[in-house]
Amino acid sequence: MISELKLIEKIKKWIPRELQAEIPIGDDAAVFPVPAGKKLVYTIDSIVEGVDFLRSGQKLGVLSAEEIGHKALAINLSDLAAMGAEPYACVLSLGIPKNYSESWIRSFYKGFVSLASEFKVLCAGGDLSQSQNFFASVALIGFGDPKKIVSRSGAKPGDWIAVTGALGGSLLGKHGRFQPRLKPSHFLVQRFKPNSMIDISDGLLQDLGHILENSKVGADLNLAEIPISQSAVTRAKGNPLKALEHACTDGEDFELLFTISSDLKVKLDKVWPKKFPKLPLSWVGRIQKQKGIRWNCLGKAMQAPQFKKSGFQHFN
Amino acid sequence: MISELKLIEKIKKWIPRELQAEIPIGDDAAVFPVPAGKKLVYTIDSIVEGVDFLRSGQKLGVLSAEEIGHKALAINLSDLAAMGAEPYACVLSLGIPKNYSESWIRSFYKGFVSLASEFKVLCAGGDLSQSQNFFASVALIGFGDPKKIVSRSGAKPGDWIAVTGALGGSLLGKHGRFQPRLKPSHFLVQRFKPNSMIDISDGLLQDLGHILENSKVGADLNLAEIPISQSAVTRAKGNPLKALEHACTDGEDFELLFTISSDLKVKLDKVWPKKFPKLPLSWVGRIQKQKGIRWNCLGKAMQAPQFKKSGFQHFN
Repeated sequence: MISELKLIEKIKKWIPRELQAEIPIGDDAAVFPVPAGKKLVYTIDSIVEGVDFLRSGQKLGVLSAEEIGHKALAINLSDLAAMGAEPYACVLSLGIPKNYSESWIRSFYKGFVSLASEFKVLCAGGDLSQSQNFFASVALIGFGDPKKIVSRSGAKPGDWIAVTGALGGSLLGKHGRFQPRLKPSHFLVQRFKPNSMIDISDGLLQDLGHILENSKVGADLNLAEIPISQSAVTRAKGNPLKALEHACTDGEDFELLFTISSDLKVKLDKVWPKKFPKLPLSWVGRIQKQKGIRWNCLGKAMQAPQFKKSGFQHFN
Repeated sequence: MISELKLIEKIKKWIPRELQAEIPIGDDAAVFPVPAGKKLVYTIDSIVEGVDFLRSGQKLGVLSAEEIGHKALAINLSDLAAMGAEPYACVLSLGIPKNYSESWIRSFYKGFVSLASEFKVLCAGGDLSQSQNFFASVALIGFGDPKKIVSRSGAKPGDWIAVTGALGGSLLGKHGRFQPRLKPSHFLVQRFKPNSMIDISDGLLQDLGHILENSKVGADLNLAEIPISQSAVTRAKGNPLKALEHACTDGEDFELLFTISSDLKVKLDKVWPKKFPKLPLSWVGRIQKQKGIRWNCLGKAMQAPQFKKSGFQHFN
């Protein structure tokens, strides 16, 4: 296999110079200027073979090297989108099994750098190790306007609950190709002020649960408004309750879930379709004082649908 | 095994509140203030089972869970020390094999948090995955005075080459317990201005090579001044050339290697022993215009010692 130093030399060439830091890849650390008046927003997320993607020959969840590179960065960009922050620079640590070829690593970087270029994320360097199973840990910093950063803990009774895109069945392909919702997030925090926001990585119900718990509130959910993806229908083989379950509990949709006041909801409804004609926005329910989740169908109370799983676990 | 959400709850309690960010562990990302007039310094480094430490039963390189936690952060702190920057906040991504116990993970955090507390490094949260072999990826940001950040590329002909501590045989134990040289680094960049600096992670010769290559210079090395550790002597079973080889090529010493002008060398020599009475400083050679490394013994030219390996490779 190619040596560490030679691989670092190659990687330097694979990353465009304009995406490298002031002190370029190869020093002990990268150096950046810091903008005045901003807050630093910081996240790390790993993609691990066998958990976040599978090798060829498996039935579901197989990704190409390029998709794995894309996903490794995209999951982190999605976290910053959820905070209402702009990405700035990333570092990447790879664990590579002995039998992985240089061309596989090249393809991984192709997917990674292509997404970094799209959002102008500096690639500040990183680290290479050998590992039995492949992993890529990406840490990402961004900057946010202190008044506009959105956490999970600000949902207020009366807020409307919104979801971008359609949910469920990501494992059929979306999980390796999804577009992190940075542009919608930027639009929302600049022009509207969501009270809380999260990206749906563990399934709608589980991630809504994080907002409810952190905000110490509950929610009414309108079953009829939950946006079910075509992939969820495919995975459910047309069974409607099964499709709803995929939409509510499948992991890795990486759509935005946010809550916003009634006034702003009316305004947002008017401009959203013009601004994002291809990305539906669904109002799936409202925040209530009373804790827990209650279900209705177009306003009519109903029993909670009985799902087998409650959400996606990367680790258990 | 314990569930992801339960483990996150426990981890929140294992990390003191004063080491958590403004938006504490559990949100999509951590949020920090940014100091004015500083540069951001950013690094990532992973510690991987089978490469950076071994499981029990092996002959060399076995570390306890607590040492592994210490090392995971310490290798990153060492990188910031090498840049002359102060650490500020880290994020941690763990890949954990199924058969690891909660008490093992607890001990890992004990080692990690204890070092974070010592240097007041905020633990901004992270990510958990399952993995066949254990890994811990730590990304660390710090801040540096723009005029005082030191890279690998500033060595100048005439500079003296200095090394802290003693080198070689780290695998006998130091690699899991070493103190990152942040205090000496802070002292050097505040009071003296090294022209170049690096931490010795891949062996003196290989890391000096990085300085020489990046600075486009060469060096004369004085064999008699290379600080050989007791562990290097032990590993060499008393053979002097073997002990020298360990000192020059063993990885993971995590000592500082820097170059400094002749004037400053004289001044530094006077104050160092008072400031760091327990940490020797060795002047192992001088930077020259002519590329490559030439050896001498107390000024008398000699052939380069013939070593079997040139340095430590984390990946090959």
